[in-house]
Amino acid sequence: MITTVSGGITAPAGFRAAGVRCGVKKSGLDLALLVSETPASAAAVFTTNRAVAAPVLVSREHLTRSGGIARAIVVNSGCANACTGEAGMAVAREMATVTAHTVDCGVEQVLVASTGVIGLALDLAKVANGIGEASRVLDRESHRAAAEAIMTTDREPKETAVRLSTATGSFLIGGMVKGAGMIEPRMATMLGFLTTDAAVDAERLHQALVAVNEDTFNAITVDGETSTNDTAFLLANGSSGVTIDDALYPVFVSALRDVARTLAKEVVRGGEGATKLITVRVIGAQSYDEAKRTARAIGNSPLVKTAIHGGDPNWGRLVAVAGRAGVSFELARARVQVGPAVLFADETIHTEREPAAARHLRGREVEIILDLGTGGEHQATMWTCDFSAEYIHINADYRT
Amino acid sequence: MITTVSGGITAPAGFRAAGVRCGVKKSGLDLALLVSETPASAAAVFTTNRAVAAPVLVSREHLTRSGGIARAIVVNSGCANACTGEAGMAVAREMATVTAHTVDCGVEQVLVASTGVIGLALDLAKVANGIGEASRVLDRESHRAAAEAIMTTDREPKETAVRLSTATGSFLIGGMVKGAGMIEPRMATMLGFLTTDAAVDAERLHQALVAVNEDTFNAITVDGETSTNDTAFLLANGSSGVTIDDALYPVFVSALRDVARTLAKEVVRGGEGATKLITVRVIGAQSYDEAKRTARAIGNSPLVKTAIHGGDPNWGRLVAVAGRAGVSFELARARVQVGPAVLFADETIHTEREPAAARHLRGREVEIILDLGTGGEHQATMWTCDFSAEYIHINADYRT
Repeated sequence: MITTVSGGITAPAGFRAAGVRCGVKKSGLDLALLVSETPASAAAVFTTNRAVAAPVLVSREHLTRSGGIARAIVVNSGCANACTGEAGMAVAREMATVTAHTVDCGVEQVLVASTGVIGLALDLAKVANGIGEASRVLDRESHRAAAEAIMTTDREPKETAVRLSTATGSFLIGGMVKGAGMIEPRMATMLGFLTTDAAVDAERLHQALVAVNEDTFNAITVDGETSTNDTAFLLANGSSGVTIDDALYPVFVSALRDVARTLAKEVVRGGEGATKLITVRVIGAQSYDEAKRTARAIGNSPLVKTAIHGGDPNWGRLVAVAGRAGVSFELARARVQVGPAVLFADETIHTEREPAAARHLRGREVEIILDLGTGGEHQATMWTCDFSAEYIHINADYRT
Repeated sequence: MITTVSGGITAPAGFRAAGVRCGVKKSGLDLALLVSETPASAAAVFTTNRAVAAPVLVSREHLTRSGGIARAIVVNSGCANACTGEAGMAVAREMATVTAHTVDCGVEQVLVASTGVIGLALDLAKVANGIGEASRVLDRESHRAAAEAIMTTDREPKETAVRLSTATGSFLIGGMVKGAGMIEPRMATMLGFLTTDAAVDAERLHQALVAVNEDTFNAITVDGETSTNDTAFLLANGSSGVTIDDALYPVFVSALRDVARTLAKEVVRGGEGATKLITVRVIGAQSYDEAKRTARAIGNSPLVKTAIHGGDPNWGRLVAVAGRAGVSFELARARVQVGPAVLFADETIHTEREPAAARHLRGREVEIILDLGTGGEHQATMWTCDFSAEYIHINADYRT
């Protein structure tokens, strides 16, 4: 049985967190620390962007050196520490060293993440002070402060947790995430942090994270941009006494997917300038890849996103995107549905149903179903948001 | 010698045009007719979108049947006649038939184009009336009315013409184009029309159009959308008495490229909501394809386009896009230049040059140069525009 619980990233036993202000961001909390009381199995997925940020390189190296074991994750917002060369690498390493000192663990057991402006030097003194302060206020109540400290243009903190009750005992999975712009993760979300107090060996943990990632963090887009810092971490410290064996693995993955999907959809819902969460389902495709590629193209189409923002069921734009997506597409058998209304099927235009579609588009949650008409049985879902003038304002003035 | 002249699409001898109102669009001129006094060699490039519009199918068929000969082109705006099934095909065919009747030529010598809302039935009666009226007012002065009649969200008509003086005589090339949204042509621009009074056989004409197309109409983007109706036509009627032979071919192609590039850049300059023309040059690539793919990704990046709109030299976003473009990219040797200012090179951040870059971004014409740092010698250029709140307003309210 799965139940949603409060407590976010520290809902699972044996985790403590803190969110403090170190002064890298103009205002607000900007440094988060997550510590497991005991060494935890650790898994991660990282950005596929070739301009990889320093914290990603350092975290990847630490995971290799530790053999998938971690005690702490340290995160700053306001500066991505990307495109910062050797100096940036030194700062990322030092963040880990300072954290290892306060937590009293090997440096390779510390994972590092940064988010914010690219091409800006990260002030080590500020971050080191912040780590010191955070380590003194670590507790199980500061999960929301931690979720707040990792935000950039996010409107609010995003966190969730669930409890799983099984025959062999109960355990929890918690998580927090940030991201509102530069969001089209191709391996992870902008920054995602998941914890569980189940015991999971590192290999199985990695396998679970990769499986879940594909249809959660990798199935969302705000603006088609893949960041230099995308990272999702998953820590499992075993504090619940429940071990994820072959029998429990499917249940664990399913619950982990629930947590990751909830967080992924929160990223879209809170996308820069977003007023609507749009679910794009592409069916009737020749392969999963073609279905996903089409759903992705629709989810990134400025014409589709602006039409939905305007409440206009302009289905012709959906067909035009499908036609340019580079996939098998049969116009004569294609079908477009907006909410409850099928607007185009069998080459027949149903203008009389547009009012029903327009009513659906006035809501905060929008669903679009497009059948590629190839007779294939594959399908994929992407979540995206609408495109508003607010997006332009946020990004035209981001650094000013 | 090449000189720019007035006269647009009818600057070359032997062409007449008209632009009239037939009532498909809510207001303004919406039907254009272009007629060559004598049969002209004809070449065309069409959209690669798989949801091909009826007029594209009909024009392609006519070019094949006529062996590359045309007397007239008929165009309506306000309705794309796309996704309209067999009924739409019948309307497109009838547009050609009515035009052939008024011009007194074979129906296969008439080319057809439509632009506007997708998934809307085109009213044949209105269009037929418009063709009748247009045929009565055809002249060499109405080129601007014709350029106006093909507009949708375009802010103003786009036309140009040049005169080439060669040892064997002089001839002219003229053109007009429309397009402001759903612009990322992958074979042609939204709608482009080019004329010349040189004599060019159909095969050579096609070769010239394909060659020129790649770095003009295929090198622009407004919003990353490839329309269902993209078409560029080129007619050569030989009225100047100059024949394009092997010796003159390079000069002809060069002049044709000038004309097409001028028009392509006008499309971007007049892009929906655009306030700036942005030239994106990618150098140091392993291949032309990789250079073009990167330039295209930058040209379509909402984060880059909004930063430039806001006058912010946020070069980190350029590096992030290059990193996700799926091409060879060496961050350590990459280089980013905005206008006169190199902001990033040798992994060194030149914050002190940002004011110079910001000054450059305040202008109406912006240049960005990105070196992928691979040591490769390939490069490519794309033209794009900035992304403003006006774009959102135009497309949220397009059909209302």
